[in-house]
Amino acid sequence: MKAHEIESSIVELLTTYNELNSSHIEELDEEPSPLEFMRYVARNTPFVVRRGARDWVATRTWDAAYLRSRLAGNKVNVAVTPLGNADAPTPDGEGHTVFAKPHEEDQEFNEFLDYVIQQEKSSPFNSDQQARKKGDEVRYAQTQNDNLRHEYITLFSQVEKSIAFARIALQRDPDAINMWIGNSRSVTALHRDNYENIYVQVAGRKHFVLLPPMFQPCVNEQDLEPATYVRSQSEEGRQHEGGGGGGLVLRMDEAIDENGDRPPRIPFATWDPDIPEVGATSYSHLAEPMRVSLEPGDMLYLPAMW
Amino acid sequence: MKAHEIESSIVELLTTYNELNSSHIEELDEEPSPLEFMRYVARNTPFVVRRGARDWVATRTWDAAYLRSRLAGNKVNVAVTPLGNADAPTPDGEGHTVFAKPHEEDQEFNEFLDYVIQQEKSSPFNSDQQARKKGDEVRYAQTQNDNLRHEYITLFSQVEKSIAFARIALQRDPDAINMWIGNSRSVTALHRDNYENIYVQVAGRKHFVLLPPMFQPCVNEQDLEPATYVRSQSEEGRQHEGGGGGGLVLRMDEAIDENGDRPPRIPFATWDPDIPEVGATSYSHLAEPMRVSLEPGDMLYLPAMW
Repeated sequence: MKAHEIESSIVELLTTYNELNSSHIEELDEEPSPLEFMRYVARNTPFVVRRGARDWVATRTWDAAYLRSRLAGNKVNVAVTPLGNADAPTPDGEGHTVFAKPHEEDQEFNEFLDYVIQQEKSSPFNSDQQARKKGDEVRYAQTQNDNLRHEYITLFSQVEKSIAFARIALQRDPDAINMWIGNSRSVTALHRDNYENIYVQVAGRKHFVLLPPMFQPCVNEQDLEPATYVRSQSEEGRQHEGGGGGGLVLRMDEAIDENGDRPPRIPFATWDPDIPEVGATSYSHLAEPMRVSLEPGDMLYLPAMW
Repeated sequence: MKAHEIESSIVELLTTYNELNSSHIEELDEEPSPLEFMRYVARNTPFVVRRGARDWVATRTWDAAYLRSRLAGNKVNVAVTPLGNADAPTPDGEGHTVFAKPHEEDQEFNEFLDYVIQQEKSSPFNSDQQARKKGDEVRYAQTQNDNLRHEYITLFSQVEKSIAFARIALQRDPDAINMWIGNSRSVTALHRDNYENIYVQVAGRKHFVLLPPMFQPCVNEQDLEPATYVRSQSEEGRQHEGGGGGGLVLRMDEAIDENGDRPPRIPFATWDPDIPEVGATSYSHLAEPMRVSLEPGDMLYLPAMW
């Protein structure tokens, strides 16, 4: 098969997908049965259950004051970046795009929460780089290591141990139960995981932009060299940080062995459906992302590989 | 992406699939629940329920004598070919492979059944072309137009109107309920349908060779010109029929419009897992077909696109 034949086949495939599938997410009023859920799994199709978790202890009782009282004195792992770009493709200032990993540090929970709330109050929904204050940085508690059974264990007694419809359908308990805390500056770059996910909005809002697995040709996946933010006060640091970021400087990851081999590159989407004109492939214009905003108590089924 | 990169990616994909999946079909002792069935649908994985239809009226009571009594005087549509190659890639005798459609004719049911049984008795399991008698042909009642609600309507009262686990899981009644009657000379070429199928063996045996959808690169799909067998006694006919076939000659299908345009070619697999050395692609050796033989009363879930 020649390259242009492959291209036109992919165009036809994606166009047909768009014709046959809505880009509006299905909305349910109540949790599905295990069988109903399994139908969505079989079709690899997301849905949202509006207010599906309204009766959870967490959605009824967790707020800043409550979390402060439960977690006072606890250290939590925080991802720190200048722009909210934790695990995201990022220009390195020298003409290349690298995979930027956050600076990770343990912070006292109440300090972390104060920072996140204060930042939101002072410039809510402000993603404009020019308006950021000197020393401003984005802090996002985003560990994915089953953190409710680890660093947030004091909250675990108030969390559902599994979601019945998913446990019964998939015949297994969750591999991980995670809580994430951020503000409107917290962003997660377009990526995919090989897990079936149930996401519940406990407080605040989150805006998802979802692409079906088939639209992989649109996302301009590239093998990126890994780099990690570190705190630095040097002049060199300020240059690399792109004009802000609380002394955060992006350093290329070190060689991993005595031969000086570079660490493995990370295959990652470099196209962003919210900035569609940058880094587009010849297929990107065919992507019709499914957008869904979650309100407190809403529950989202995010299928594997979306 | 360059051609050799695509090739090595496909090789890796198929090799990994083989490592992660068994080529032995899963065997159940009883019908699955709708939820259990939906798990197989979600995984696009076949299973067989051994003796799952043992209590059906059809499996308990249908035999040649019974069918004769119920269908005496009825005409049924029969696919007639020299080699059992109805809807199969076939050499046209002039160096090309064409898509051979059977000669279709309405036959008195009892005559048809007599022929099928007599042929089986005289040379059971004989696929050797040399041994075929002059004038021998293969007759296969293989309509797929929901035939139990049409030409076999007199049997329909004894047939399950749906299979509960599939109806409940998929939330719909079957699109078609078909019965097929043939003998060991009846062959169906490697093909795929975009339907979830439940196949029940009422009498005799059938041997399936199944490939997962992902193994499409192995099957050497080609766009074949359509041709149809017709009955002919001419010399020309005998030459084209490949040395047998009861006066059946393969004729290229006629132009479809006044411009003389050829009828559309039919994309079809030309590689046969049972003759793996012929027409192989560079991926065919990676195919590990799933083979399953059904005995009377066995039930097979044949997923869409396998």
